[in-house]
Amino acid sequence: MANTNDKLQELKGILAEVTDLNRAALLLEWDQETYMPRGGVQSRAEQLSTLLRLSHVRFTSDQVGRLIGELEEDLSGRPFDSDDASLVRVSRRDYDQSVKLSPDLVAEIAGAGSTARPVWEEARKEENFSLFAPYLEKNVELNRKVADALGFEDRPYDALLGRNEPGMTTAELEGIFAELKQAIVPLVADIARHADAVDDKVLHRGFDPDLQISYALEVVKRLGYDMERGRQDISTHPFESSFGPGDVRITTRVSRDFFNECFFGLVHEAGHAMYNQGIARAIDRTPLWDGASPGVHESQSRLWENLVGRGLPFWRHFYPSLRAVFPEPLRGIEAEAFYRAVNRAYPSLIRVEADEVTYNMHILIRFELENELLEGALKVKDLPEAWNTRFKSYLGIDVPNDREGVLQDIHWSYVSFGIFPGYTIGNLVGAQLMEKVRADIRDLDAQIEQGQFSALLGWLRRNVHQHGRKFTPNELLERATGRPLTAGPWISYVQQKYSALYGLHAARR
Amino acid sequence: MANTNDKLQELKGILAEVTDLNRAALLLEWDQETYMPRGGVQSRAEQLSTLLRLSHVRFTSDQVGRLIGELEEDLSGRPFDSDDASLVRVSRRDYDQSVKLSPDLVAEIAGAGSTARPVWEEARKEENFSLFAPYLEKNVELNRKVADALGFEDRPYDALLGRNEPGMTTAELEGIFAELKQAIVPLVADIARHADAVDDKVLHRGFDPDLQISYALEVVKRLGYDMERGRQDISTHPFESSFGPGDVRITTRVSRDFFNECFFGLVHEAGHAMYNQGIARAIDRTPLWDGASPGVHESQSRLWENLVGRGLPFWRHFYPSLRAVFPEPLRGIEAEAFYRAVNRAYPSLIRVEADEVTYNMHILIRFELENELLEGALKVKDLPEAWNTRFKSYLGIDVPNDREGVLQDIHWSYVSFGIFPGYTIGNLVGAQLMEKVRADIRDLDAQIEQGQFSALLGWLRRNVHQHGRKFTPNELLERATGRPLTAGPWISYVQQKYSALYGLHAARR
Repeated sequence: MANTNDKLQELKGILAEVTDLNRAALLLEWDQETYMPRGGVQSRAEQLSTLLRLSHVRFTSDQVGRLIGELEEDLSGRPFDSDDASLVRVSRRDYDQSVKLSPDLVAEIAGAGSTARPVWEEARKEENFSLFAPYLEKNVELNRKVADALGFEDRPYDALLGRNEPGMTTAELEGIFAELKQAIVPLVADIARHADAVDDKVLHRGFDPDLQISYALEVVKRLGYDMERGRQDISTHPFESSFGPGDVRITTRVSRDFFNECFFGLVHEAGHAMYNQGIARAIDRTPLWDGASPGVHESQSRLWENLVGRGLPFWRHFYPSLRAVFPEPLRGIEAEAFYRAVNRAYPSLIRVEADEVTYNMHILIRFELENELLEGALKVKDLPEAWNTRFKSYLGIDVPNDREGVLQDIHWSYVSFGIFPGYTIGNLVGAQLMEKVRADIRDLDAQIEQGQFSALLGWLRRNVHQHGRKFTPNELLERATGRPLTAGPWISYVQQKYSALYGLHAARR
Repeated sequence: MANTNDKLQELKGILAEVTDLNRAALLLEWDQETYMPRGGVQSRAEQLSTLLRLSHVRFTSDQVGRLIGELEEDLSGRPFDSDDASLVRVSRRDYDQSVKLSPDLVAEIAGAGSTARPVWEEARKEENFSLFAPYLEKNVELNRKVADALGFEDRPYDALLGRNEPGMTTAELEGIFAELKQAIVPLVADIARHADAVDDKVLHRGFDPDLQISYALEVVKRLGYDMERGRQDISTHPFESSFGPGDVRITTRVSRDFFNECFFGLVHEAGHAMYNQGIARAIDRTPLWDGASPGVHESQSRLWENLVGRGLPFWRHFYPSLRAVFPEPLRGIEAEAFYRAVNRAYPSLIRVEADEVTYNMHILIRFELENELLEGALKVKDLPEAWNTRFKSYLGIDVPNDREGVLQDIHWSYVSFGIFPGYTIGNLVGAQLMEKVRADIRDLDAQIEQGQFSALLGWLRRNVHQHGRKFTPNELLERATGRPLTAGPWISYVQQKYSALYGLHAARR
């Protein structure tokens, strides 16, 4: 019988191969979004399908199952934060998820997704939900099957949520969203009554695209994004993609007519990238080498984009150099006015365009509706009405059509439910971490105002980045901040920031 | 027992998977040469090693060997040019080559190559061959081992040559090179005596790099390179890379101070690319989907670069638009003077900078020396002297040091001998095909002068491109031109072209 070390080496050898296949597939996808000529579609689909199939087959082999089982016994006494113990724990989680879904179900899901996608596009274009309804019904049914296959104790949504945010439960999220709703709904109404207090016309005055990109790149380098181990390219939808510790890339898009798109998009993606650039090299080529969860990953992008990049100290530092690059559009605008402009908040229909305050309401609505569909409390045919009612109730706006309403997101044309909460978790985790950062780095704002970001990045590296997937989101938060996920810090943050920005009554706060 | 069709489908399924892995590896290499950040080196090496190992393991499996064996029997009556019969024949050739080299030998070769590479760089920098000599001795020994493992009837070089140029023998090549030497050596001497007849200073007058690239791209699109199924990027060493019928890319480099580098480099790579863009889709995702050999592939790049792109009709057509783009550097230069400039010939030390006439002499010297080393007629320690003596004898020039002499090429720091002849084969095949093209398309020059290239490209598609690797180089040449490889057409071509350019005596011709 092999000793523990031999078994660990055997498992790591296979996981390294699986990692290489997945990273190669990621590069093929990166190329598809950036440089691939139109003609390459078919061959690329073949290549991706082969790589991902080989990776899946290798990872779900009996050999891997046996090694994980034996190593769980061998390492049962190891300290909780040992790399090897975590590796076995996370491999077990991934392995179980992968083998529980039968190849037939996986194929059915893939087929349903590719069938529903064009119908969704058509329905959206035609503003006709009824075209899409039968396909969504099928997808709801398949989500139920996935939940059953993965298993759950209490709520079917737990199974779907657990795939993305390990250890997080539906009940826990419901509590958090209830708190959010209670705080945001009145804040949104208050802001709406003071809408004139903030003017963002300056952002639409026209900014040279090439200069926007080069300026934003200089900024993200200053924040700590290492371009010796990364690069930036253009794509339709911005994303971050990691091919290893030395190759973590970001993409952006740029609009002459709206400053925020490129600048805050690039800071956002650089936030993701700095996370991956900071993961310990000791866990490279294992399943541990990634963010703790999509939600925690989002916390890093939002933290840099919003809590840093949409802050007044940040613009006190950068605004003079920005104005030197764009003297014309920024004529007559001072730093504080610019800060106010990039923070304008208003209830809107479209999630991806929503501001910091209202964004989580868009997620809450989707979270509630996914749960109700899954549990049968809501029928697909009644979904548009439920959507519109909630928009009126939470954000105070009327949804004029399904294109700008229930049909706006691509997510439901694929099968997977349980993706949306990650965006809100990201916002909350970011604020919760930042509260602790401010306790540990007392002069953070002064540092930012002087363009010093290394203490902040160092804190994030030590407390978040280096660990990769070693800990679940709540374990990580407890280690870093002393408590599990909580909405409090984020609520305090937006209440204070937006009360000041919009001059709201102290009583409201 | 499975029927023939089932076995074919089974084999094709595996070959498709192997193709996908190889194409994914090619994309990773393309990215490495174009966009990968410096930090990506280590992860990329891991990914490539995994992909290529999986591809090798899959292709050399017993299952593939058994299927090929059974299908050889099943298809023995099929017509020679049937896709399926060719597939089995070419798979057999590749399979035997792959399994004959033991994993140990392959690993030893890889190790020797990566050890020798930095020593070669050091020796070249220091102009000190003796540093590199022991590593080259090891590589010669390994080449002998490879030849023994692959097997040969007559000469060890046959085994190495056959890996690249199937069906070609050392004796056949020796005959061809003897003919070339007899014709070129006096021609080179003659040109040297009339060197003043051609002036190429105009090429060094300074050309805006961006305009060079955009102009060259417009030209290769006109030649027939389909950019909906391709693209162009910058790299240190230009290359062409194919990821499938719809994605065939080229790269280039550009120098402000020398016009030829970008323009003819791009036409050269587009020649390679048009070959792959023209392979029949019916043989996609099989080992047939590639050029017939490196030599035949080179024939397509050289044909477009030299036989078309360095021709007078070509410049009669393009020169006016070129002059419109570069009015300053081309001031006072007419089309014919420009044509003369880009064809200047002179004996030189460096292969990659050699002109059409002298290029094959550079290859001949390497071919002779590789053979003598392999057969023990020449010792590694005597190689520099042998190199220099031959340069004096064939090209009439003294080699001042080993850096510009025997140490100039990277090839010998890797193990593989038998690569160099492909470049000369490319030149000869190109001229042999072109002779037949001119017989079939009587007004070819008039078409070119009018910027019409579709008849030429169509001829190449029908007679060369579409077949991929279905035929050996000589089979392909016999089908297209009625005879196997011969030096005659190329010799006539350079003698006529350069006698006219340099005003040589008719007697010499």
